[in-house]
Amino acid sequence: MSENNNKNFDKPIVIGITMGDPLGIGPEIIVKALADSLLRRQAKFIIFGMDEQLTYAADTAEIEPYWGRHQHEKISTDYPHNVVVADYDDYCVPTRFEGPTKASGEASIQFCLDAIIAAQDGIVDAIVTAPISKSAWKMAGVPWPGHTEMLAEKCKSPRKAMMFVAGPLKLALATIHEALFEVRDIFTIGRVFEPLDLLNTALIDYFGVKKPKIGVAALNPHAGEDGQFGDEEQRIIAPAILIAQENGIDCSGPYPADTLFLRASKGEFDGVIAMYHDQGMIPVKLLAFDDAVNITLGIPIIRTSPGHGTAFDIAGRGIANPSAMKAAIKIAIQMAKTKRACNVGS
Amino acid sequence: MSENNNKNFDKPIVIGITMGDPLGIGPEIIVKALADSLLRRQAKFIIFGMDEQLTYAADTAEIEPYWGRHQHEKISTDYPHNVVVADYDDYCVPTRFEGPTKASGEASIQFCLDAIIAAQDGIVDAIVTAPISKSAWKMAGVPWPGHTEMLAEKCKSPRKAMMFVAGPLKLALATIHEALFEVRDIFTIGRVFEPLDLLNTALIDYFGVKKPKIGVAALNPHAGEDGQFGDEEQRIIAPAILIAQENGIDCSGPYPADTLFLRASKGEFDGVIAMYHDQGMIPVKLLAFDDAVNITLGIPIIRTSPGHGTAFDIAGRGIANPSAMKAAIKIAIQMAKTKRACNVGS
Repeated sequence: MSENNNKNFDKPIVIGITMGDPLGIGPEIIVKALADSLLRRQAKFIIFGMDEQLTYAADTAEIEPYWGRHQHEKISTDYPHNVVVADYDDYCVPTRFEGPTKASGEASIQFCLDAIIAAQDGIVDAIVTAPISKSAWKMAGVPWPGHTEMLAEKCKSPRKAMMFVAGPLKLALATIHEALFEVRDIFTIGRVFEPLDLLNTALIDYFGVKKPKIGVAALNPHAGEDGQFGDEEQRIIAPAILIAQENGIDCSGPYPADTLFLRASKGEFDGVIAMYHDQGMIPVKLLAFDDAVNITLGIPIIRTSPGHGTAFDIAGRGIANPSAMKAAIKIAIQMAKTKRACNVGS
Repeated sequence: MSENNNKNFDKPIVIGITMGDPLGIGPEIIVKALADSLLRRQAKFIIFGMDEQLTYAADTAEIEPYWGRHQHEKISTDYPHNVVVADYDDYCVPTRFEGPTKASGEASIQFCLDAIIAAQDGIVDAIVTAPISKSAWKMAGVPWPGHTEMLAEKCKSPRKAMMFVAGPLKLALATIHEALFEVRDIFTIGRVFEPLDLLNTALIDYFGVKKPKIGVAALNPHAGEDGQFGDEEQRIIAPAILIAQENGIDCSGPYPADTLFLRASKGEFDGVIAMYHDQGMIPVKLLAFDDAVNITLGIPIIRTSPGHGTAFDIAGRGIANPSAMKAAIKIAIQMAKTKRACNVGS
């Protein structure tokens, strides 16, 4: 092992946190999550956001501010605090909490763009994104519907998948935000193989599972009962599994979805592939309660986020629950550490 | 209250249990479930089945037989035992456990037909059905694919729905054994209204909920986000909810399915309507573990069953888990008691 690598291994992990929509619950859940001094000791943190909003959130929650502040243009890791706000005080957003605005969309996209550059430049080891408002991004003329699409384009990653960690369950989705009855039009072998391949790689690289065992859900009730109710199991899912197996992935299925998630949550599988949004998200929400964490697969940057939205309806009232944000930060730290250990070891 | 009614109220509840396929785990889970003497004291039981198979199961499980035996033609409630087997020893089935046969189909359909007559004649207050084999019924020329369809026809009930009790969750399905991509062809307002209406009635009549609060699931991710991913929420589900509300049912929705079941399991709703099989069965299996109970709605007979199949692969080995059968018996007793109390009170 070279001296250089050793040095790299001793360097603290740095997590970039984007504040999300300034008018949502982002500032509050960040301030509350990092108020946990044990968590704060596990890494250094750069918050891409606005000092004013964070201070307001701390006031409301009666938390003593624990962070330093820099102009966002001067961001670096050479600072004395464990938490530093890269402050975008040149951006103005209304202070009243009343839903999405163009100004909050312009600010929240800039936090993300700069966090991605920081990750690409090696200033941060991972990004944790607080929720943005799709409507605010639209008002601000942002050309992407959400984080995932933006990250894929900025990282020039043609393949991407949405992964969730929910307590004992880790899963990736084959299809995401489609009308249920339109899934049939895009349901191909590649659509099932891609998340299978990406989840397998992620479990090895970021979660330290040497040979992940992946269970693939069926699409139809009872996995179609040998073609009695639908033949997508034979036509699409089984061939995707076969291709994955031929590529050395330890996967099996398709299994009836109503028992697969229970089996996975008991430890029979390291990961699961769900065929459509609700098939995966129903068990995610049931098993994670408030702690579901969303991870973008297929990009060279580690990105996690809490599995909930901006919650404009409760923003600014000091009652938002930071536990999903805490879980997202913890998983980002764990992923960054595993990745660094793999790189040092290799 | 008349003397007659009082007398009726004091009479013990009688539960008819059909043994299901003689070569499946039915005999074993029945023997094991009723081996619980506390459960046995809550009602009288008539098992429509075969003494030989039940005795074999008791031997394997090292349980002392606790039942009496009558020829099936002579069944009545005037017997000294709490548990009596209506014995079909004139039916012959192979004794080796190797999957469905014509003979086991012929026997298991007869158990059901006779149990229905016993229920219609008031000899039993409820029926609990152990799992049958659809293939065995087919071999025996049975004209129904399963219990539910047979019960609906025998009871001349044009409307029926499948309900599940899973720990804190009670739900009914709008569609059942259809290929997922074929649900669109049968997805109508009536299809959503019917289980809503039937579940509401069942919660009142059998579970003693005075004014049930029912949550209706959406079909699409995020309930379609105002038509962005599918419009079935506006076109089909919302009108069904409106009709139900106009009929005095306290229901609401459509709610995103990934959070509805969690909300219901925390007590926000007395019942939930799921739009398709896996949407309902994933939370049922996750919340009930091994204790999911299936109930047929829309028929004048109380019928429950364990939410699993014949499990031919483990039959005869003494390792089957009776907890879903126990749960099905307990719920049948509770439903029969509630119904009797309602009738006495009214």
